[in-house]
Amino acid sequence: MNEQLLAAAKAVKKTKAFLNKVSSTQKEQALFAIADALENNTDVILAANALDVAAAKDRGISASLIDRLSLTAARIADMAKGAREVALLPDPIGEVTGMTTRPNGLQIGKVRVPMGVIGIIYEARPNVTVDAAALCLKSGNATLLRGGKEAINSNKAIIKVMQEALVSADFPADCVRLVEDTSHETAEEMMRLNGYVDVLIPRGGKRLIESVVKNATLPVIETGTGNCHIYVDATADLAMATEIIVNAKAQRPGVCNAAETLLVHEAVYQKFLPMAYGALSEKGVSFRACEKALPLMPGATPATEEDWETEYLDYILAVRVVSDLDAAICHINQYNTGHSEAIVTNDYSNARRFHAEIDAAAVYVNASTRFTDGGCFGKGAEIGISTQKLHARGPMGLEELTTIKYIIFGNGQIR
Amino acid sequence: MNEQLLAAAKAVKKTKAFLNKVSSTQKEQALFAIADALENNTDVILAANALDVAAAKDRGISASLIDRLSLTAARIADMAKGAREVALLPDPIGEVTGMTTRPNGLQIGKVRVPMGVIGIIYEARPNVTVDAAALCLKSGNATLLRGGKEAINSNKAIIKVMQEALVSADFPADCVRLVEDTSHETAEEMMRLNGYVDVLIPRGGKRLIESVVKNATLPVIETGTGNCHIYVDATADLAMATEIIVNAKAQRPGVCNAAETLLVHEAVYQKFLPMAYGALSEKGVSFRACEKALPLMPGATPATEEDWETEYLDYILAVRVVSDLDAAICHINQYNTGHSEAIVTNDYSNARRFHAEIDAAAVYVNASTRFTDGGCFGKGAEIGISTQKLHARGPMGLEELTTIKYIIFGNGQIR
Repeated sequence: MNEQLLAAAKAVKKTKAFLNKVSSTQKEQALFAIADALENNTDVILAANALDVAAAKDRGISASLIDRLSLTAARIADMAKGAREVALLPDPIGEVTGMTTRPNGLQIGKVRVPMGVIGIIYEARPNVTVDAAALCLKSGNATLLRGGKEAINSNKAIIKVMQEALVSADFPADCVRLVEDTSHETAEEMMRLNGYVDVLIPRGGKRLIESVVKNATLPVIETGTGNCHIYVDATADLAMATEIIVNAKAQRPGVCNAAETLLVHEAVYQKFLPMAYGALSEKGVSFRACEKALPLMPGATPATEEDWETEYLDYILAVRVVSDLDAAICHINQYNTGHSEAIVTNDYSNARRFHAEIDAAAVYVNASTRFTDGGCFGKGAEIGISTQKLHARGPMGLEELTTIKYIIFGNGQIR
Repeated sequence: MNEQLLAAAKAVKKTKAFLNKVSSTQKEQALFAIADALENNTDVILAANALDVAAAKDRGISASLIDRLSLTAARIADMAKGAREVALLPDPIGEVTGMTTRPNGLQIGKVRVPMGVIGIIYEARPNVTVDAAALCLKSGNATLLRGGKEAINSNKAIIKVMQEALVSADFPADCVRLVEDTSHETAEEMMRLNGYVDVLIPRGGKRLIESVVKNATLPVIETGTGNCHIYVDATADLAMATEIIVNAKAQRPGVCNAAETLLVHEAVYQKFLPMAYGALSEKGVSFRACEKALPLMPGATPATEEDWETEYLDYILAVRVVSDLDAAICHINQYNTGHSEAIVTNDYSNARRFHAEIDAAAVYVNASTRFTDGGCFGKGAEIGISTQKLHARGPMGLEELTTIKYIIFGNGQIR
């Protein structure tokens, strides 16, 4: 076991008792202190970030990754704004639900409490450091963060600023700790910190999720990959369907709730595909099409089995003509990753069947999959989108970072 | 991968679509059919059970395990009664909660849906086969069961009866399947059936839970071990405290919600310990006592560090005198297993602090820990008691065997 990792985990664990007792007001003040400190230390953070960006450029890292890594004064101000928004969200801790009096007079209620220590493993974006820590803090949790090696200087600077702000608000600095060793070995050790970390949330791509599933002995909330579909039914409003597929594919293709495959009922594909093709081509989308769709989509390449499985995160769309709703549901339930799925239809029964039979976190009728997001769902913020069924499914806000305990009031009851 | 295991898992998975659509009425009928079939096939089940009991006796297995393994006509009738009770519980599936209309007109609601396939690894008690399958079926889940080798003949007979009953009720037989290979290797393979099993619930002792934590790649709900404490505070009603510790320790010592350690405030130990000692001795309890308690408890052996950590599940009680509430909370949060903890007190602030600061699934004031149970908590039945924080904590009823999905109604919304 990496000694620095263990020392960090022990230090974070020690703050649980403090965070369990702290008031909403105190948490709010700490988050405002963090936001102010981030803005006041913009220069320090930008200087550290410049080191990361220069190193990334030296290593010839892709432009899109460098964009995700790069901070500006405006991005730091956004991080501060985010922390202030989280500060003002309702505190989920302490809510008592379902309190009943049992026949023997025992009063039994469920109270919402923090998880304890939340471990987060993420990649190159330094803003995650603030976002994740703020949500964990607001929900009464201590945080052990392990960001990608590309952002190590930025993350160290940000954590230092946050810890100083915490101390200024009379919080233990160790409520938030960074794992400074960014090796894969240490990440894997972090996945096995049973007894120190209560829940692990990986935020990243397919490879990170696979490593977590394979290596973690901690309870995990999987987030992430979205192989999302738009199914255009026989009765769809085709203008609406065109708007939805353009939005779902091309408004922001690099995110997990973007669509990757278009399924079209065979009764309307000859009319619909040229419409979709035109609108999507204008946005720079290229196509992988099934045999039937191919002739209607000049320049498209034939789709293979692999295309149905792929989350492109790019201006590429797989297209398949299906014989009916059953075939669409069957395709989606075979290939989807449990994220977001949409039908465009005007058929009442088909809309109901799609809602009932599709196995995914968010199932849409006549709307873009792009809405699967904590903000759009009214949660105020999100720490990620769960694609698993245990504990949390879909966008995770503050409530999903908590657990419950039963509190029981008696007057001498025995069994 | 064991081929029989994989074949069983595939067969069970195929029934998910059926179970996802089945009505409450149909599930009720299937459970009644199972109950009737169990009673009608009592002789067949008893004959199979006799083989298991004879084999267990040949292997010189302990009397208590043979008791858990043994079936009688009355116990089979109890299993049938349990299935009928589960049949009549409210169906958790399909409940829509928190449906809101967002500013853009999207209606977003959370609907309660089955997990899918639930895997259960358990030990020698054949009644678990029926109890677990009934709860899973009622909550719309398919079940893959792997019982202990001691009960293999009983389990095969019970599963055959249940499957015939399912078919008679127009359900696929494979809604419930038994893993017939009872080797540890196959159990470990079952813990890694990602893509087939949605959640794994181990029901058993410390060793099983440790194996699951180490080997499982599936999402797991840990159940089980309970190192529970009763803390008698300075202001406790000592007669009430005596009743509570006698009940928590001796009413049924072999269960996870029984107490293992008694903590006593130093202001009352000299008066209280003789009372507790007398009442507990009458029930056959022996003691492991700290230095201060030792002189008051004739025949007690000195307690060691190991005693604070031990779940005896027996007529043995560890006893420690503590200086105050802080010391009691500190002891409990260090040694407890997140199950059930109780304070006996008449001090308002101390009761509140105990509720707030103890980290466990169920925290009691002035009642026995023995109430941590699905039935006592008003859940109608339980599949186990979760000692983890993710997804479910405390007694798990039907609701804890479900997940949610978001259903979204739009009319063309894009982002």
